[in-house]
Amino acid sequence: MKMRKIVECVPNFSEGKRKIVIDKIADAARKVRGARVLDVEWNASHNRSLMTIVGGPEAVFEATWKAIKKATDLIDMRQHRGEHPRIGAVDVVPFVPVSGVSIGECVRLAKKLGQKVAKELKIPVYLYEAAAGRPERVNLADVRKGEYEGLGVEIEAREERRPDYGPAKMHPTAGAMVVGARKYLIAYNVNLDTADVQTAKEIANVIREKSGGLPGVKALGFLVDGKAQISMNLVDFEKTNMDGVYTAIEREAKKRGVEITNSEIYGMIPLEALVKMARDSLQAPDFAAEQVLEKRIYEFE
Amino acid sequence: MKMRKIVECVPNFSEGKRKIVIDKIADAARKVRGARVLDVEWNASHNRSLMTIVGGPEAVFEATWKAIKKATDLIDMRQHRGEHPRIGAVDVVPFVPVSGVSIGECVRLAKKLGQKVAKELKIPVYLYEAAAGRPERVNLADVRKGEYEGLGVEIEAREERRPDYGPAKMHPTAGAMVVGARKYLIAYNVNLDTADVQTAKEIANVIREKSGGLPGVKALGFLVDGKAQISMNLVDFEKTNMDGVYTAIEREAKKRGVEITNSEIYGMIPLEALVKMARDSLQAPDFAAEQVLEKRIYEFE
Repeated sequence: MKMRKIVECVPNFSEGKRKIVIDKIADAARKVRGARVLDVEWNASHNRSLMTIVGGPEAVFEATWKAIKKATDLIDMRQHRGEHPRIGAVDVVPFVPVSGVSIGECVRLAKKLGQKVAKELKIPVYLYEAAAGRPERVNLADVRKGEYEGLGVEIEAREERRPDYGPAKMHPTAGAMVVGARKYLIAYNVNLDTADVQTAKEIANVIREKSGGLPGVKALGFLVDGKAQISMNLVDFEKTNMDGVYTAIEREAKKRGVEITNSEIYGMIPLEALVKMARDSLQAPDFAAEQVLEKRIYEFE
Repeated sequence: MKMRKIVECVPNFSEGKRKIVIDKIADAARKVRGARVLDVEWNASHNRSLMTIVGGPEAVFEATWKAIKKATDLIDMRQHRGEHPRIGAVDVVPFVPVSGVSIGECVRLAKKLGQKVAKELKIPVYLYEAAAGRPERVNLADVRKGEYEGLGVEIEAREERRPDYGPAKMHPTAGAMVVGARKYLIAYNVNLDTADVQTAKEIANVIREKSGGLPGVKALGFLVDGKAQISMNLVDFEKTNMDGVYTAIEREAKKRGVEITNSEIYGMIPLEALVKMARDSLQAPDFAAEQVLEKRIYEFE
């Protein structure tokens, strides 16, 4: 049986106002057969847009490359103002495994893309997250320090800010670029039957990885529509899935005399996250995504 | 957004020995664009085979029709011997909703097919399950009473055994046919850490619908590889899903000092069964199958 490979790429562009520019970038990606632009989001005050491109690894690579080339032609960083940190016209490009693909394969795609961008567009490229070549470049915020303006000076002056690929000098209009690979991120919120935001903040603090909680969990407590909400990013659902945080939050809530009213999965999730939930909650270790009818049907078309 | 419709049809043929005949029937279905023969199973002692055909409603209808025509040409019921009850060359044909399709739509497909078979092939057709026109024909075993040999006499002699469509007389070689619609059936087994089959039988009796248990659950207790197993068919996962029976069995097992060791999903399940499990266990009522990346990707291709 042919196992279909699916990769996602979410390039972030430093353009969030001129709709015509965003459309042209997305159209460049759309022309590539086998890749699909699932979503385009933009924010005017951030002056930034992001595209979700999915499909087979080679098609997604090609579509992302085409979008990058178009953005390099159309965006001039010397004119760019916006609230969101950025170092280039194409600011950050993460490859994400969805199905039948390892994180290693995404690292290879990221490096291949970085080399191509450096060679053909003369843009300095930094590798981050799973593709990072140095520990101090794993974290995106560290790579982006000083932003376009500050990095423009440091890239030439300081050894430790030299790019992984390409010239140690900003591209005159496109600046620099960060390329890498990371696991699929699930955005998941749990709402409580209390208006006390402190409860949400306390529970978020207990479950987040940073303070010794669950692996791969980033969590914050908010008040949303008068209800306490724990808003999470699950950055490694193979380690901690939605049911894992739900159960932990339920337990912590009970300790505080509070209950879960409902939860929300925000945006898209890979099929594997659902399959894993079923496997774990039903103690069904042999259950596989290939047993889901829709997957079988579509894969064979 | 275009919602893709998927129907499954599982025609059962009275041929389980001559591989070349089974292949020819399957090949007739395979020629129809938009339909896919996902699986062909056959059993020599039953002298019976069944095919799982999936795809869009019209394509599945057409593929099933082509397979029926071929089977009618190649199978002679006057020669047929086998352990499994049957009334015709194409014994029973259920249409099953998988995605974006109601049971009502499957009933319409079943009736349309029954009329076509009666008209063009002169085979008497009975409607069963959700397509049944009379309560005494809902149950397949009741429709098949007397089998090919017995029905051949009664169809002409007794008013209440007249078919829903076609002549009140068996087709000389193809006999009669049962066509209908039913919901998706999930085959699910739960294993216990005991060798006492009685425990499995007791729990099966508590949870099965027939004895006042969970709706849509058929259950039997067995001893499999020295372990007690509750073997189930979930005939309406919207009412009782895998997690529902798992929880009920866990509770009943605990009462008897026993635990679940693992469970097994047998064969294929529709994506919606997993989505529903997540929705229920996470209290996430807004979560929809359209949020599963693979579904979105494939639907747009």
